[in-house]
Amino acid sequence: MNEEIAAAVVDAGPLAIICGGGSLPFAVADAVIARRRQVVLFAIEGWADSRRIFAYRHHWIVLGRFGWFCRVARAEGCRDVVFIGALMRPAIRQVRLDLNTLRLLPRIVRLFRGGDDYLLSGIASIFEEQGFRLLGAHEVAPEILMPEGTLGREHPSRRDVADIEKGLMLLNATGPFDIGQAAVVADGRVIAVEAAEGTDQMLSRVAQLRRTRQVEQARGRGVLIKAAKRNQDRRLDLPSIGPQTIASAKCAGLAGIAVTAGSTIVADVGSVGAAADREKLFVIGVREPD
Amino acid sequence: MNEEIAAAVVDAGPLAIICGGGSLPFAVADAVIARRRQVVLFAIEGWADSRRIFAYRHHWIVLGRFGWFCRVARAEGCRDVVFIGALMRPAIRQVRLDLNTLRLLPRIVRLFRGGDDYLLSGIASIFEEQGFRLLGAHEVAPEILMPEGTLGREHPSRRDVADIEKGLMLLNATGPFDIGQAAVVADGRVIAVEAAEGTDQMLSRVAQLRRTRQVEQARGRGVLIKAAKRNQDRRLDLPSIGPQTIASAKCAGLAGIAVTAGSTIVADVGSVGAAADREKLFVIGVREPD
Repeated sequence: MNEEIAAAVVDAGPLAIICGGGSLPFAVADAVIARRRQVVLFAIEGWADSRRIFAYRHHWIVLGRFGWFCRVARAEGCRDVVFIGALMRPAIRQVRLDLNTLRLLPRIVRLFRGGDDYLLSGIASIFEEQGFRLLGAHEVAPEILMPEGTLGREHPSRRDVADIEKGLMLLNATGPFDIGQAAVVADGRVIAVEAAEGTDQMLSRVAQLRRTRQVEQARGRGVLIKAAKRNQDRRLDLPSIGPQTIASAKCAGLAGIAVTAGSTIVADVGSVGAAADREKLFVIGVREPD
Repeated sequence: MNEEIAAAVVDAGPLAIICGGGSLPFAVADAVIARRRQVVLFAIEGWADSRRIFAYRHHWIVLGRFGWFCRVARAEGCRDVVFIGALMRPAIRQVRLDLNTLRLLPRIVRLFRGGDDYLLSGIASIFEEQGFRLLGAHEVAPEILMPEGTLGREHPSRRDVADIEKGLMLLNATGPFDIGQAAVVADGRVIAVEAAEGTDQMLSRVAQLRRTRQVEQARGRGVLIKAAKRNQDRRLDLPSIGPQTIASAKCAGLAGIAVTAGSTIVADVGSVGAAADREKLFVIGVREPD
């Protein structure tokens, strides 16, 4: 189905890619270009990687200038929009607003007060009211999705598999509460649950809990489990992993990482697999529980 | 029912109280003495408050010397044992072991690797095999339990009540996974979920997330919700709050604290209420959801 969507959009004009931080936006752009569709990158100031953006047709944009984005994207002939890359929830006071955005401000403030799901579905509808079609990065570039099975050489032990199952069940239970999409389980014990802090900060906490011996499990035990939330608007916020996730999981003393196959983004499968081999961690794509 | 148990144990000889840190052990001892039962305090070295222990009949004990504890407690005529007070999971290597404990060591190591429920029910059965009866502090001193309604002058707003309900539902969903007993919810958004780090560290994280603006909710919004786990062995690990919890909640910028009435320990209702009034936080005991 993803392949069909990818094929269908080839004739829909250039794709606008709104770029947050990290290498994901460029992986998506390259995949779309390889499918012979033009792209226009809208690089968010302060977030997008300025060293890499110049290789592509691009405009710099400032958070909060939604009216300006709409005008330029229309002038470029873009109707489809993809939003991709790291973007910490911005401090509203730091955002410079244009008139169009000012009109939307009360709504945006309300959105930011809710959980992620609420924020993201609200943003999608704002784009759509302006005549844009918001697509998921995985719809225009399905090759960025994690496949089933392991990347790299390491495999989970039987104990790791039990931890993965427990983590998936936990994330399934917390899904309706619109919290984080990750947890750490070691030897059957839930060590950490992600909420507003994000995966990297949760993994730093696990490293700290090991140092203070609030967690007794030996290094090399424990799994980071990440799962897409059910009913989540997958156009905007699929969980993702990259080389940084491998490094953080290593610091936290884990055995490996398990993510839901087909609903987790891996920017560069090759480099993630190589990093995992170097650190002797497993990285596995698993099926979402029914 | 708690009153009946408290009455029934009056003739059962002196009560052994194994004392961790904080003021709770002394609140329990005073309540038991007021019911005209003798107490013998077993103060854990490195944890029990050495300034206050001398007012009571007591012995110092070292973690890991379980055989020694059994002999002394029997010589004191104690059959009933209560364990109360703060005790961070000890680093197993720091514990000095006696022979009796060495025999139990493989079992204890396994216990420490599991979640809290697993650890605690295992400890209870070890005491019972030695002929002791492990009681909950709330069974010998029901006055330490949080009542329904507010302590102090502040009350939750309608928005706070909605946050409390969401937090209770979340803790109900995570209960089967044997994780922490607390979460922070602000304006309907789950900000933090406690696992191995404990309530105070979770509240520090919330304060940090506010500083970095990863959480946008204004100060004075948000509630700490604590609930006893279902099916938890309540003899050993009821959630508790004290003046420190009020201080941490204030630092985290919360509006107040909600705990399950009848299953949360408050060492000194008067001083917690006074601290809450000083910081303008509400503290409320709520019914556990059905």
